Formats: sequence, structure tokens, C-alpha cells
Amino acid sequence: FAREGMTTVVHGRDTFAVEAIDYVASFRPPPGLLATLPNLKAMLSLGAGIDGFLADPALPKHLPLVRFVDRTLSEEMAQYVVMHVLIHHRMQRMFDAAQAKGEWRQILLPRRTAQTRIGILGIGEIGTVVARHLQPFGFPVSGWSRTPKAVDGVRGYSGAAERDAFLAASDVLVCLLPLTDETRGILNADLFAKLPRSAFLINVARGGHLVDDDLIAAIDSGHLSGATLDVFHTEPLPAASPLWRHPKITVTPHVAAISDPDAGARTMLDAIRRCEAGEPPLNVVDLARGY
Amino acid sequence: FAREGMTTVVHGRDTFAVEAIDYVASFRPPPGLLATLPNLKAMLSLGAGIDGFLADPALPKHLPLVRFVDRTLSEEMAQYVVMHVLIHHRMQRMFDAAQAKGEWRQILLPRRTAQTRIGILGIGEIGTVVARHLQPFGFPVSGWSRTPKAVDGVRGYSGAAERDAFLAASDVLVCLLPLTDETRGILNADLFAKLPRSAFLINVARGGHLVDDDLIAAIDSGHLSGATLDVFHTEPLPAASPLWRHPKITVTPHVAAISDPDAGARTMLDAIRRCEAGEPPLNVVDLARGY
Repeated sequence: FAREGMTTVVHGRDTFAVEAIDYVASFRPPPGLLATLPNLKAMLSLGAGIDGFLADPALPKHLPLVRFVDRTLSEEMAQYVVMHVLIHHRMQRMFDAAQAKGEWRQILLPRRTAQTRIGILGIGEIGTVVARHLQPFGFPVSGWSRTPKAVDGVRGYSGAAERDAFLAASDVLVCLLPLTDETRGILNADLFAKLPRSAFLINVARGGHLVDDDLIAAIDSGHLSGATLDVFHTEPLPAASPLWRHPKITVTPHVAAISDPDAGARTMLDAIRRCEAGEPPLNVVDLARGY
Repeated sequence: FAREGMTTVVHGRDTFAVEAIDYVASFRPPPGLLATLPNLKAMLSLGAGIDGFLADPALPKHLPLVRFVDRTLSEEMAQYVVMHVLIHHRMQRMFDAAQAKGEWRQILLPRRTAQTRIGILGIGEIGTVVARHLQPFGFPVSGWSRTPKAVDGVRGYSGAAERDAFLAASDVLVCLLPLTDETRGILNADLFAKLPRSAFLINVARGGHLVDDDLIAAIDSGHLSGATLDVFHTEPLPAASPLWRHPKITVTPHVAAISDPDAGARTMLDAIRRCEAGEPPLNVVDLARGY
């Protein structure tokens, strides 16, 4: 930033003069803070999701809010999703458990790759990259989005009318939705019941999408075969959460796609340059839509 | 087979008239048996490797030995290798251990994808498919083969002269070599010393390639960071093997690429049809070379 002639940013707990701030970069700004900055020109999200900003009731909605969209972030997400799809499909957890007992349990996989359908709930920029990485393995991939989206080789479903058909065709459901009032709690008993028996859930979006107790009940009833969760209502996930100890749930500490600091800096510099030149920055959030 | 007008195959322990057998399909034929069949026309391997046949000192070497080469087998192998490369690269084992203790251990990955070089030791039909599945994730891939092989986007090394340079550039070494007198025990202390510090080994070829004690010593000294092994000197792996219990070694029961029964039948029918028509079958092993 210094090289670009900008004064280096104040940090979270520094004291500062409110009128000195032109731009704010944050993941989850303290509610009310942004509204106190009289000269703020734009808000820059450090993550792909901007629900941390939307949680601020005093968010200055007249200013542009820029989402962090970056190829490396999408590719990290694709690595994570492909890894956990394969761990599930190839029964690696069963082999891990057998190894722990010193048991040689050679089996044929119960389901072929071409019969293991992956459904991406909320297919957008990131979901498209995830789909492109899943397809070479032979998994049939479909995607659901609010409005129709055409992605090469991906069976597209859209809107409320096609949601149930999409769910019925998802042996592995990957949640990549933005967190909005419409999607909060969407991964619940009602949705799980619409998935095929033995379906598997991967949630890499936000903890707020998931009703934890409904997931545990769906797994314990045998309807779902398990889940991999990277995001949680409260992070760090509290020690008391039953998710930590469930034998069919993998918990990772919000690491599916950590924003690359270099890429983040480049993206933010580009947004600031465009604002200073009087141009609209890229990837401005549609605040009416919520993402 | 019956549909093709062939008499169904006798099985391992059935009694049969030696002169009634035209073709034998096997993974590891009982030594000496094949030499007793006076009318044998060809031998069909049920696996991609034919070391089970080479172990027979009385192997009728004047007859064609057909390797099982199949796209589904190569793609299963690619799934397995990509999964274990990602488990290593993304530190999933560390996250598993943290989950077992209920610890939220959010970290940045110590090594970027573009700096994690995958070396395929023994790049042939299967290795080429494996490379094609690794590349979209951004891993730099190189391959070593006895004779030069050009594979798109793969840095090629060949022969004894280039072996050390190949090893020095392999942060993850994937062994896909055929098992021959030249390659037996090749994964030993000498080879491990030529890998970069913290390198990781994936052996999906044969147990005979690996000197188990050398691997354990290289991991325990901190030079190697771990290994995933799908193949072993004795299978099932004996309960007493220290490989089962090593915290940095993943053991799977020879499941990386199980031949698909339908594909196997198709491949064998094709080989038999060609032999009966007086044509050479595809994928005949060069017995002088050993693969």
C-alpha cells in the first residue's frame, strides 16, 4: 500500500481520527463502526461472503461494498471440495477406521463414480470452478442457483420450482450459498428429507446455513451417510458442540479457502484505484439481493 | 463368455483336463501350473502389473501375456492419488487429529500449491492419466521413465542419468513402477535421501518396491513427512507390521485401482477374439523388459 502512495491502514484496535479513513477492509466489521466514518468511499470485504457486513444494522448502504473474488480462493475451495468428495466416495474414513484396528478390509466401492451425482447448491463464480475440478473424475455435476446459470457440462436447476428436483439428484450436496435472510437455516430436516438416501453433505459456505441438530438427526437416522463441515454458527466451534465428536462428521476450522494475502492486497488496490479514478470497482455487491 | 460361444472357464480349485484350457486369466497363477497346459494360447493378467506371472519360474514365455489396461482402472488410480496428494497438501491428517482433541487449529498452509511438486516415478499409461488429473489443481507435475516419454505439461526425466534430478524435484513422490528385478527395493534409504526434506511418498505400485524399515527410519528422522501405502510385500498386511500403527503412514488394503469386472471381461474377450482371428492382442507384455 505504501508504494501506491497510500497511508497504511489503521488496525482494529488502534485509535484513529474517523475523518482520516477513506477505505475499510474487513471480514466482520464491528457493528456501527462504519457509519461513524464521514469520509468513507468504499468497503472492501476480506472474504468472498459479505454476511459479516450485512450483520451491521447501520451499514452505510449507499457506499460500494466490494466482494473478494479471486482465482486462488476459488481453486483452494475446489481442492477442498474434491478432496472431501473423494474421501467420501472412496470410503477413506472406513479404511482409516480399519487401519486403526489393524484390519485389512478390501472391498469394492458400493457406488460407481458415474452414479455419484454431485449437486452444488449456490453455483456462482466459486461453484463453477469447483464443478470444473470435479468433472474430470467422472462425477456427474449439477448446480442450483436462484436465477438460471449455464455452466459447461453442469446440469442447471434454478429457482424455487426446480429446487426439489435438484436435491433429489444430489448424492453429495455441496453448499456454496451466500448467507442471506433467504438462505439462513436452509440446510434443515426438510431439505435433508429431499436428498437421496445415504446422501453426504459438504458445507463450505456459512455455519448459519445449517441447523446442526437436524443434521445430526438425519445422520443418526441413517438417511444421510455423513458430512464435512468447514463453517459454524460460532467460530471457533465451541468445545461443547456435538459436531466435534460425531463419528460421521468431519470438522475443519474454516480453512477450505483462506484468502491469499498477496491476492487480497492486489484486489483491494485495484478496487481503490478504480474508486479514486471515479470508476466503479469490480465485484460490487448488490445489497438488495444480499450477495 | 457363454454368449461368445466359449466354454466357461474352470476356476482355481476345480479339477480339469489340462488339454481343455486355451486361455488363462489370473493375477498370480500358482507357479508351475501354466507350463502344464499343452494347448494354452495366451495368458491374460487380471491386473495392470504382471509381476504375479513373472514370479512363476516355469512361465511359458513363448506365449503372449496380455496386461490389463483399462481407462476405468487408470481413473480409479487417479482418484486415489489426487485424494492422497490433497490430504497431504491440505494437512487433513493434522485437522483430523485436532478434531479428535476438539481443537480449532486454523492455520495457513505452509506450502503453496505451485510450490508442491509431484513426481511420478514410472510414468506410463496410468501415470499419464494420474498427471492429467493432478494438473488442473495447479500442482507442477514431473515424470520419470526408463525411456523418454513426452506427456503434455509434464516435465519429463528419463534413465539412470536423470533419476537424481527427478527425485530432487519431487515434494510428493508417487510410485507407479512395474515390479521387475531392476525396480525391486528401489524405494530405499538411498532414494529417500535424494528427495527434498519433508517429501511425502505415495506407493500404489507393488509392496516389493519398498524397503519398509528404510521408510520408517526416513520418516522418524524427520526427512520424510509421511507416506500413503496401498501395496505391501505380503497381502493382507500382517498384523505385526509396524506400518499399521505408524502415525504418519496411511495404510489402505490394495484398493487404489480395483479392476472393474465388466471392463475386465470386455478386455479379455477382445484379446481372445484377436488371438482366435490370428491377430496379435493389444497390450502384450515385453517379457525381456518385464512390463
